[in-house]
Amino acid sequence: MSCFSFRNGAHSRLGCLLIRGLRRQSAHCRPLNGTVWIARPDSLQKPVGGKAGVTPKSEDFNRWYLDVVKFGELADYGPVRGTMVIRPWGYSLWESIQQYLDRRFKETGHSNAYFPMLIPRSFVDKEASHVEGFAPELAIVTQGGGKELEEPLVIRPTSETMVNHMFSQWIQGYRDLPLLLNQWANVVRWELRTRPFLRTLEFLWQEGHCAFATAEEAEKEARDMLDIYVECATQVAAMPVVPGRKSAAESFAGAVSTYTIEAMMSDGRALQAGTSHNLGQNFAKAFDTTFLDSNGERKFVHQVSFGMSTRMIGGVIGVHGDDNGLQLPPLMAPVQVVFVPILKKDGDEAGVMEAVSQLAAAAQAAGIRTKVDADPNKSPGFRFNYWELKGVPLRVELGPRDVEQGSCIVARRDRPGKEGKSNLSMDEKEFVAGIQQALQDVQANMYTAAMDFREANIVDVESYEQLQAAVAAGKWARGPWAGSSKDENIIKEATSATLRCIPFEQPEGLPKPCLLTGAAASEVAIFAKAY
Amino acid sequence: MSCFSFRNGAHSRLGCLLIRGLRRQSAHCRPLNGTVWIARPDSLQKPVGGKAGVTPKSEDFNRWYLDVVKFGELADYGPVRGTMVIRPWGYSLWESIQQYLDRRFKETGHSNAYFPMLIPRSFVDKEASHVEGFAPELAIVTQGGGKELEEPLVIRPTSETMVNHMFSQWIQGYRDLPLLLNQWANVVRWELRTRPFLRTLEFLWQEGHCAFATAEEAEKEARDMLDIYVECATQVAAMPVVPGRKSAAESFAGAVSTYTIEAMMSDGRALQAGTSHNLGQNFAKAFDTTFLDSNGERKFVHQVSFGMSTRMIGGVIGVHGDDNGLQLPPLMAPVQVVFVPILKKDGDEAGVMEAVSQLAAAAQAAGIRTKVDADPNKSPGFRFNYWELKGVPLRVELGPRDVEQGSCIVARRDRPGKEGKSNLSMDEKEFVAGIQQALQDVQANMYTAAMDFREANIVDVESYEQLQAAVAAGKWARGPWAGSSKDENIIKEATSATLRCIPFEQPEGLPKPCLLTGAAASEVAIFAKAY
Repeated sequence: MSCFSFRNGAHSRLGCLLIRGLRRQSAHCRPLNGTVWIARPDSLQKPVGGKAGVTPKSEDFNRWYLDVVKFGELADYGPVRGTMVIRPWGYSLWESIQQYLDRRFKETGHSNAYFPMLIPRSFVDKEASHVEGFAPELAIVTQGGGKELEEPLVIRPTSETMVNHMFSQWIQGYRDLPLLLNQWANVVRWELRTRPFLRTLEFLWQEGHCAFATAEEAEKEARDMLDIYVECATQVAAMPVVPGRKSAAESFAGAVSTYTIEAMMSDGRALQAGTSHNLGQNFAKAFDTTFLDSNGERKFVHQVSFGMSTRMIGGVIGVHGDDNGLQLPPLMAPVQVVFVPILKKDGDEAGVMEAVSQLAAAAQAAGIRTKVDADPNKSPGFRFNYWELKGVPLRVELGPRDVEQGSCIVARRDRPGKEGKSNLSMDEKEFVAGIQQALQDVQANMYTAAMDFREANIVDVESYEQLQAAVAAGKWARGPWAGSSKDENIIKEATSATLRCIPFEQPEGLPKPCLLTGAAASEVAIFAKAY
Repeated sequence: MSCFSFRNGAHSRLGCLLIRGLRRQSAHCRPLNGTVWIARPDSLQKPVGGKAGVTPKSEDFNRWYLDVVKFGELADYGPVRGTMVIRPWGYSLWESIQQYLDRRFKETGHSNAYFPMLIPRSFVDKEASHVEGFAPELAIVTQGGGKELEEPLVIRPTSETMVNHMFSQWIQGYRDLPLLLNQWANVVRWELRTRPFLRTLEFLWQEGHCAFATAEEAEKEARDMLDIYVECATQVAAMPVVPGRKSAAESFAGAVSTYTIEAMMSDGRALQAGTSHNLGQNFAKAFDTTFLDSNGERKFVHQVSFGMSTRMIGGVIGVHGDDNGLQLPPLMAPVQVVFVPILKKDGDEAGVMEAVSQLAAAAQAAGIRTKVDADPNKSPGFRFNYWELKGVPLRVELGPRDVEQGSCIVARRDRPGKEGKSNLSMDEKEFVAGIQQALQDVQANMYTAAMDFREANIVDVESYEQLQAAVAAGKWARGPWAGSSKDENIIKEATSATLRCIPFEQPEGLPKPCLLTGAAASEVAIFAKAY
């Protein structure tokens, strides 16, 4: 599996000039929701390297990804190996996911809470498969306030143990159930192979933690929360996902069932973009989390946890980006429309700038996130490339002739070149309506394009040979499966592909012979290389 | 200075029954913005101890405070000494502060970002006074992924060092400035004396970090951000504060000037509720954070940082609470109006419940956060006490006779007893308008009451003896000051009072003789015991 260390200077070949130049622009990510007149340094007249300096995706997906993260000013490397700084452009993408999920969790009866980050080491050991899964990845605090601690503390890799410690005190009777909590937090997992957003030592996420009286309610919750992740991925991030069940080998350490949404990155790899876990009574038994039911009998609660993280930003990059850089779904874009006034000679400014100001103000008043880039020291082409790299969905081009004619040009980020350009009236009402429609169109088209790509890259296989061929070609293999964890491992060792999920949506015509063992398989599973 | 360890069973005297009973209710903090029909356990018919089991404030402020935190379900103790779990009712108070500050920071040009929590130990040593201030409080990670780390890592106690490490890479020229960032994060400080919300090992906060080309801009930012804290405290939390400058001895470790807002808790102690720091070029010099100015000269940037934390929740408890428990400003209250239907005999239910449902729905549709507590197993008095303890600003009482007469009773939390009760028409429009007006009145009255209390408890002093008397009486002493850090320490050693701030608003008639040294003092300072 190819992989880059964060500290590898993957960009050194591009030369210092570009990196410095692009770094300079970072200071200007100011009011994301307002119209801002930005100025950029003089040294940046022409991008070095490919368009805007980004390695073409087709040439080297991994370099392309890192280029987009860096030059798109989404994140930078922290001083500790494997950590990252999420920069404003990247953080705003996280905020759009936060807002959506937070609203949906509250609508479905969950409250936010906050649990301590520092967990006694002994807690992690209480649930057998949990400790097996997480012990190798722990960051451990051994000193506090200048003294050695009596018991080492673990920085949470996830909070099931801490939550159960509290739930066992809070929950007494059946009337205390269901208990539906969520927290927004950072977690630390000591990963060896890291990549910005996709796998980092520290990351941000939400983790839901719920307790129920019955197994049925817990199972329903695990599925309902996965549905919210499906909504968020498809509707907000324009990212098609396959919802399904994880195999035992790929399930969360401590779960009875793990459900997942799997997205296809544009290199054909799978990205696990969100998971929910039916924990059954595993943690309840380890932590004695019990309740008295209505008959006065003491019972263990049934639990669920679920999480989505800043990894989603890596998904947005990898699913939607192209050779020109980032491509943001309008619902996530911190800037939805950038205005680029085109001034060909002195004296043009007044009329054009006035028109731009008016249209930008009208769009902003309608709730559209706008920005004006009127830097006179940059060519229009340079400015076009810059905002394409940043993934802004729409660009409005406006010069003196446009003002005379009362119409401007709107260019769509999702359709590069001439076919993405159209004329739009400068009548304020028509303009705003046109922009709103275009934003909807871009959002819808990005989803369709990603879905088309995915469907074209899933191969239905019936044999191990077909699976191997599909995986070798960088595609997903979907086929009848009745194998064991050991069988999965055979495939993993040979092809690097893992069982991503057993999709909820199953084809007709089953059972069929398992692609590996030949035994009757009542389900198909998807195998792919993954992040 | 009196203080409680988190793990001291301060409530044990109340007996297990009450604690268990109240714990049970925790499960019901569900949709904060919606109307929820709650049911509570049968065992909780009557509160044990004082009203709702809370120690009277006049009897023992510290026990009262812990009782309100615990029985008001704001927080609970984490398993690690000095840590806390913020429960939904408490977290929702933090969310209201977050929403306000986040909006104001964005309106004033700041963007959110996220910096890694793990900082190389060597970073902290780079700025001399910073390391002196923070080294004793550090939590240190020495193991990761099963191995001893080559360099120990510090969990951020604050992020100036990490931020400068990044700023020195991002900032090149004057066009990169100002750089205005904020992050929402957790921090860890290994405090020995802890108290929920007021001082905890881990707490949540926002920390702003900005860089400027000139000293003037930095100074302006530090003052502007303090103004936002003043707004937040006074307008959202109904908490009067004294904004002012910290003395050198009380300033942030590494700052040139620290500005603060100081609130008076209802035991007369001062609470530092938010601070901003003009860092000058101290960190810039330590981390070589420089820029080329417009003349091509390399200069150090001028920096500012500012923070407000979950400590504000402790402030809301301590400033507004009374013997009946918590008292929440309507703008922060997760539930602004609780409906308590009063059913005296069988057969009453239908009409009353229908009326309650209609009014609650109308209020909710108008954006008022409502809850209905119709538990038939609880007496109205019990339900009154419960929601008073939780601090809900308004209670609507409604029985069969009220329905007949077309009017209900509205009881204000800020005016206990009969004088806080009034009749309100059940005509939906009039009802909603009446509730909205009452919420505004409560918000304003809470501020006025806290302000009156504060003004009555600040003593203008002219001598050390007067200062000692004021502090001994649990009041703030305000007097002419021209002393040194050493002089401050004399007062601190003798009285436990510290110099809280030199208020921006100064009286006329200065200079006067310093209350301690007799030297000409051009300013007054406030001395008080503090949290």
